[in-house]
Amino acid sequence: MERKNRTQGILALLLFLFCGEVHGQSIPAPTQDSTHTAFVRAIYSEALSAKQGHQWLSDLCATVGPRLACSPGDAAAVKWAKQTLDTLGFDTVYTQTVTGNTHWIRGDAWARAHSGGKKISLSIAALGGSESTPGGDKGKGLRAQVVEVLSFQELDDLAAAGKIKGKIVFYNRPMDPTYINTGSAYGRAVDQRWAGAMEASKHGAVAVLVRSMTLSLDDFPHTGVMSYGEEKNKIPAAGISTLDAEALHTLLAKDPTTEVSLLLGAHTVGTCTSYNVIAEWRGSDKLEEIVVAGGHLDSWDLGTGAQDDGAGSVQSMHALYLLKKLGYQPHRTHRVVLFANEEFGLVGGMHYAANALEKKEKHALAIESDGGSGSPRGFSFENEVARSALQKFQPYVAPYGLLSFSVGGSGADVGQLAGQGAFLAGLSVDTQRYFDYHHTAQDRIESIHPRELELGAAAMSALLYLFDAHSPIPSAP
Amino acid sequence: MERKNRTQGILALLLFLFCGEVHGQSIPAPTQDSTHTAFVRAIYSEALSAKQGHQWLSDLCATVGPRLACSPGDAAAVKWAKQTLDTLGFDTVYTQTVTGNTHWIRGDAWARAHSGGKKISLSIAALGGSESTPGGDKGKGLRAQVVEVLSFQELDDLAAAGKIKGKIVFYNRPMDPTYINTGSAYGRAVDQRWAGAMEASKHGAVAVLVRSMTLSLDDFPHTGVMSYGEEKNKIPAAGISTLDAEALHTLLAKDPTTEVSLLLGAHTVGTCTSYNVIAEWRGSDKLEEIVVAGGHLDSWDLGTGAQDDGAGSVQSMHALYLLKKLGYQPHRTHRVVLFANEEFGLVGGMHYAANALEKKEKHALAIESDGGSGSPRGFSFENEVARSALQKFQPYVAPYGLLSFSVGGSGADVGQLAGQGAFLAGLSVDTQRYFDYHHTAQDRIESIHPRELELGAAAMSALLYLFDAHSPIPSAP
Repeated sequence: MERKNRTQGILALLLFLFCGEVHGQSIPAPTQDSTHTAFVRAIYSEALSAKQGHQWLSDLCATVGPRLACSPGDAAAVKWAKQTLDTLGFDTVYTQTVTGNTHWIRGDAWARAHSGGKKISLSIAALGGSESTPGGDKGKGLRAQVVEVLSFQELDDLAAAGKIKGKIVFYNRPMDPTYINTGSAYGRAVDQRWAGAMEASKHGAVAVLVRSMTLSLDDFPHTGVMSYGEEKNKIPAAGISTLDAEALHTLLAKDPTTEVSLLLGAHTVGTCTSYNVIAEWRGSDKLEEIVVAGGHLDSWDLGTGAQDDGAGSVQSMHALYLLKKLGYQPHRTHRVVLFANEEFGLVGGMHYAANALEKKEKHALAIESDGGSGSPRGFSFENEVARSALQKFQPYVAPYGLLSFSVGGSGADVGQLAGQGAFLAGLSVDTQRYFDYHHTAQDRIESIHPRELELGAAAMSALLYLFDAHSPIPSAP
Repeated sequence: MERKNRTQGILALLLFLFCGEVHGQSIPAPTQDSTHTAFVRAIYSEALSAKQGHQWLSDLCATVGPRLACSPGDAAAVKWAKQTLDTLGFDTVYTQTVTGNTHWIRGDAWARAHSGGKKISLSIAALGGSESTPGGDKGKGLRAQVVEVLSFQELDDLAAAGKIKGKIVFYNRPMDPTYINTGSAYGRAVDQRWAGAMEASKHGAVAVLVRSMTLSLDDFPHTGVMSYGEEKNKIPAAGISTLDAEALHTLLAKDPTTEVSLLLGAHTVGTCTSYNVIAEWRGSDKLEEIVVAGGHLDSWDLGTGAQDDGAGSVQSMHALYLLKKLGYQPHRTHRVVLFANEEFGLVGGMHYAANALEKKEKHALAIESDGGSGSPRGFSFENEVARSALQKFQPYVAPYGLLSFSVGGSGADVGQLAGQGAFLAGLSVDTQRYFDYHHTAQDRIESIHPRELELGAAAMSALLYLFDAHSPIPSAP
């Protein structure tokens, strides 16, 4: 009676909404192997209790910080990763030399609009690979009228009418908010950033400003890599915050003679050597088959790369460490691979894949996390062969919210292994917040939700476990 | 060639990860009705472009703010809702009188620990329904030694040993981090808040402090409703922030004679009348069947109730408004119902259901949003009958991330309609962040992600549309 009293009201009032999950989720469905079901539960319990990944990421962001290829942070990150992996009890930890990384320096950056006798400061950031305005940091920058365009077609048309030469081209096509996956909206706007300078230069423009790649309206300019292609006249290129893109649009609507003065100190100084950092855990009876969990260790320099891709790096470390900590002995050889220099040309990923091909390594499965630390939704596979082979594991992870097993690409780095016979997968996470932080000063530890981060590591760990432990062991195609 | 140049590099480098979604998601699968597929796409495009829900919620939080039943904000919220709904072109907007709402006043609250000659300030908030310390706001509070317990069993055992009488009982069992759905962890810890004072009072305790219901470690105390049951000796009860719960635990471990001084001005002054606010949109050929989208308009008083349940309120408004704006003419009669006083006893929900029964209204479907504005995952149904009837709509909404059609309760308010023949559903959203804000001063507009909010409204709208438009029209059980 007393006990009933304690719970009577509360059951009616408070538990109402929340009956969806019990620890009874670990009760195996009839077709499931209860050992596997219990092990997946153990992975999640350990990940969510110990929060090891968040500790690593906090440490990486605090002690290393930004780590653009060839920067001091890049070297510090390699050292951090090697030292941290060394403590985890894997068989070997080693680095793989990655040469030919672009050494690019950001330098100073400022811009002001001049309109109706007023000067308005604009939030900008040089795009990765941009060259400087004349004289660089010590020059006076440049000043020119601004022409706003929404597409390359509009650029071409205006150029044909003689309206581009000598101007600053302002690419202001927003990301399309009607896409559900924000990555799709990004993919369809980012041509402005990648090819904007190249195209404007062909028509004699003197610089470009590119609306930041985000669905958020804020003051943070987004950087990211751009290319001059074969273009010899390398005009300076900067991202402008969405709020200032809106402001500049308004100024131009009122006064088409609005000018912008701009200084960028950015320049490329050569190339450097960096390193993929690899931890290897040897398998038992199938040790010649290799399974990879990976993310990229480098980051942009405006924030501390917590989301892109510190999250994926520590999740990859954590995914294997969880298996080790829980006493699992893998059949196959497992690797954590922390790729060098993804941001400036996928150099580490290409090197890893080339090396694997050269050494005739047999990769069975490679999974990457490089979409930020959003709440996990499932996995995205490189192709239908991979999806259909691994779909059978979905019932084991569905109770953890991993309902989506889709074909939609794996990851930029592990994707380089395509054609080498491995199943390739990427962790799928909720994308709504990712471009709020991506390539900005806001990509910091504060943007990481600890539980969402750990759930991602557990998701990767569960897939690795199921793939390796499930009997009969699936063969790579 | 030129065009190719522009996209060549970028396709390899940047679009890699994001091939999962195209607007081609609106290409109907063979078994789908293309009209329905296109209409669902239109709902999402409109919701994500116009962001009407976020505008409403910003306005509600800014101009009304907190709106605990019987407070001035409660009346202001009813007025706001009626006025806002009046602009949307539904057939009628009216209120339903809801009597018997507890009128509770928070008053002042402070607490200090006294240990080793030091005074340490503690972050606390009175629990809803608590009575004051002696003399209320004008009294001197009380001071007593503290006994920490993790369960009612431990409380009973300590009481049997004579260690509870005259003490402040400190309930410090954390929410279990290993649950994936944070609501499940909440449901299994909240007995401390609901029944803690009642149980401690039986053993002669003088007050209770309850660890806040969150998985986050922070300085924000959580409020929420509690009950004295039949207990005549109504001892004061407060929530304490998780960081201060940890601090108090540490103090007690070092010094079991640690005392706390506590003042609460909280008290109940009587009852008041409030109102359910209802907008009705008459159906055509099935107008006697009623479909409801609802959330609760009241909120706790520490923040502005953006998540709980301003989000669900504006999503319900938006769900129907989207259909109207897109030119849909429903078969059934549709209602937005903004329930009064959920937080202090589900009074509005119970009244609505009782009134429906009395008037012999035939409800076909009722859907609620009251789990915060997290990214939508699908729908949770009251029972298997409802789930299996509506499961057929899943393929239409799966491209929008709504993969989960589960049985796990609907919503506290619409759940009151159970037994009246309606399908009952709740919007399922990602739960990871909800209890970071729930019932605290942090439940403010800043905690809302605009896109996640709009996606929730679109999800509800899509289900309402599919249910009403799909042929053959499903019958309520």
